[in-house]
Amino acid sequence: MINRLVDRIKKLNAPIVMGLDPMMDFIPEQIKQKAFAEYKETLAGACEAVWQYNKGIIDATYDLIPAVKPQIAMYEQFGVEGLQVFQKTVDYCKEKGLIVIGDVKRGDIGSTSKAYAVAHLGKVKIGSKMIKTFDEDFVTVNPYLGSDGVNPFLDVCREENKGIFVLVKTSNPSSGEFQDRLVDGRPLYELVGEQVAKWGESHMGDAYSYVGAVVGATYPEMGRVLRKLMPKAYILVPGYGAQGGKAEDLVHYFNEDGLGAIVNSSRGIIAAYKQEKYASFGEAGYADASRQAVLDMIEDITGALRKAGK
Amino acid sequence: MINRLVDRIKKLNAPIVMGLDPMMDFIPEQIKQKAFAEYKETLAGACEAVWQYNKGIIDATYDLIPAVKPQIAMYEQFGVEGLQVFQKTVDYCKEKGLIVIGDVKRGDIGSTSKAYAVAHLGKVKIGSKMIKTFDEDFVTVNPYLGSDGVNPFLDVCREENKGIFVLVKTSNPSSGEFQDRLVDGRPLYELVGEQVAKWGESHMGDAYSYVGAVVGATYPEMGRVLRKLMPKAYILVPGYGAQGGKAEDLVHYFNEDGLGAIVNSSRGIIAAYKQEKYASFGEAGYADASRQAVLDMIEDITGALRKAGK
Repeated sequence: MINRLVDRIKKLNAPIVMGLDPMMDFIPEQIKQKAFAEYKETLAGACEAVWQYNKGIIDATYDLIPAVKPQIAMYEQFGVEGLQVFQKTVDYCKEKGLIVIGDVKRGDIGSTSKAYAVAHLGKVKIGSKMIKTFDEDFVTVNPYLGSDGVNPFLDVCREENKGIFVLVKTSNPSSGEFQDRLVDGRPLYELVGEQVAKWGESHMGDAYSYVGAVVGATYPEMGRVLRKLMPKAYILVPGYGAQGGKAEDLVHYFNEDGLGAIVNSSRGIIAAYKQEKYASFGEAGYADASRQAVLDMIEDITGALRKAGK
Repeated sequence: MINRLVDRIKKLNAPIVMGLDPMMDFIPEQIKQKAFAEYKETLAGACEAVWQYNKGIIDATYDLIPAVKPQIAMYEQFGVEGLQVFQKTVDYCKEKGLIVIGDVKRGDIGSTSKAYAVAHLGKVKIGSKMIKTFDEDFVTVNPYLGSDGVNPFLDVCREENKGIFVLVKTSNPSSGEFQDRLVDGRPLYELVGEQVAKWGESHMGDAYSYVGAVVGATYPEMGRVLRKLMPKAYILVPGYGAQGGKAEDLVHYFNEDGLGAIVNSSRGIIAAYKQEKYASFGEAGYADASRQAVLDMIEDITGALRKAGK
């Protein structure tokens, strides 16, 4: 699956991923009104609105982007119905040829971590049958519990030819509270990065490992160091755009081959129509605004890479 | 809710929580056969088996225990249907007067962490309505992303009078890989523990805070230190029994008032019938075996507390 991700990034010349994090405030009024008219202001109504909104954006962008990253929390807040829409969104993206990175940030130990891995990447055993459920291609994983939490994911990844992105340095302002603390003179995130490289050795694709890392766009100097510490890890980069990460800073997250990183944008794409820059599309043209935002983001990032000679 | 938890623990003289982590292997054959006969070997069949199994155990133990801790991964592995049974289990436990600690170990940032908090402890806004979904009483939270990840949970906890348990030192063998690393000569878990105490100050119950901590039973010396660092935090203690934690070691997790900790047992209770000690109950008597295991665990822990003069 990491090979397929790299191939799609090369083919589309687009090292980007679209975050499908549908907040109710992002959804155009006419979609919400129609859904509420049919299902009232219920969980079913909200979920219908989320689904129609997602579908519009996916249909308008799937030919330009290699991958999507649905944030499961935005679906989980609508309970079981919300998770049904998460599932429907994953399935639909895969039908459209997109690679799906489930942003689930799960992490537990032993048989519990195995259960999460099975839920999102593998198959669950029921009597004599093996049955798939959410079935994303990659998921994000929290490393706080150490190898006992990560190894069960690696086992399922090997069986299913799938991958993970481990949280190393997150994009938020308080990420330093624990991640930056110095251990023998080096920040904790470097130790986690080294461990990512080690975990990754056991499950390699052609040029890159099935074990990637999450490193926020908002800390470019740390991105530069981590790039070197984990040369074979694909870096998933949140925090571009809305959170302040700039394309010229992100070139350090890429290797000299111009590969090795995939930059996420969520609200910058899916709520583009709310920005002044794309206001002319109007609410009804929200999906076209998202398409234009994707084109602009690709140009922004590949332009910076060209400038840096990568 | 922390006051209610403390009251129930005192009333029942039972500082324990039952982990409802239903693995397929734990479920008696006759329950599985009946469910598969009705629904075949499908997700629906597995979920019916999980539900009947849970219900049997809850009915046999609810009058003895203050709280249950369903591990959501064990339900999530069965996809949307599994999460429906999670919801049904949470609802049923609450009907029976039990306090429900959702072992979800979620953790993200900003609006995403808010969405998880809303999903599990709060209400989601849909148009003009506020709607509850999973609605547990407490959840476990992963601290790796720092205050940006925890504060949204605290906001929802204040609104809803609910609480969280933050992972500090987990019970697994590799928990030390990152948690034990020395920062200025002190292990990281101590810094997390201090932060838990700080977060907790902003949301206090009568004697204890709404912000508790998870500290594994398998590291009693660390439990002793953390008890002192977080005097007002309730400590949720996994790792008793199956993972090796012993009652006499756990007295250090309690304050002098005999309160301040709640010890979890999962398979030790819910799969008690598989132990030699409870074999005479047979598979058909699995729920009665669980009841006996609860009584034995309460005696084991309260006995150790009495001996320690707590």
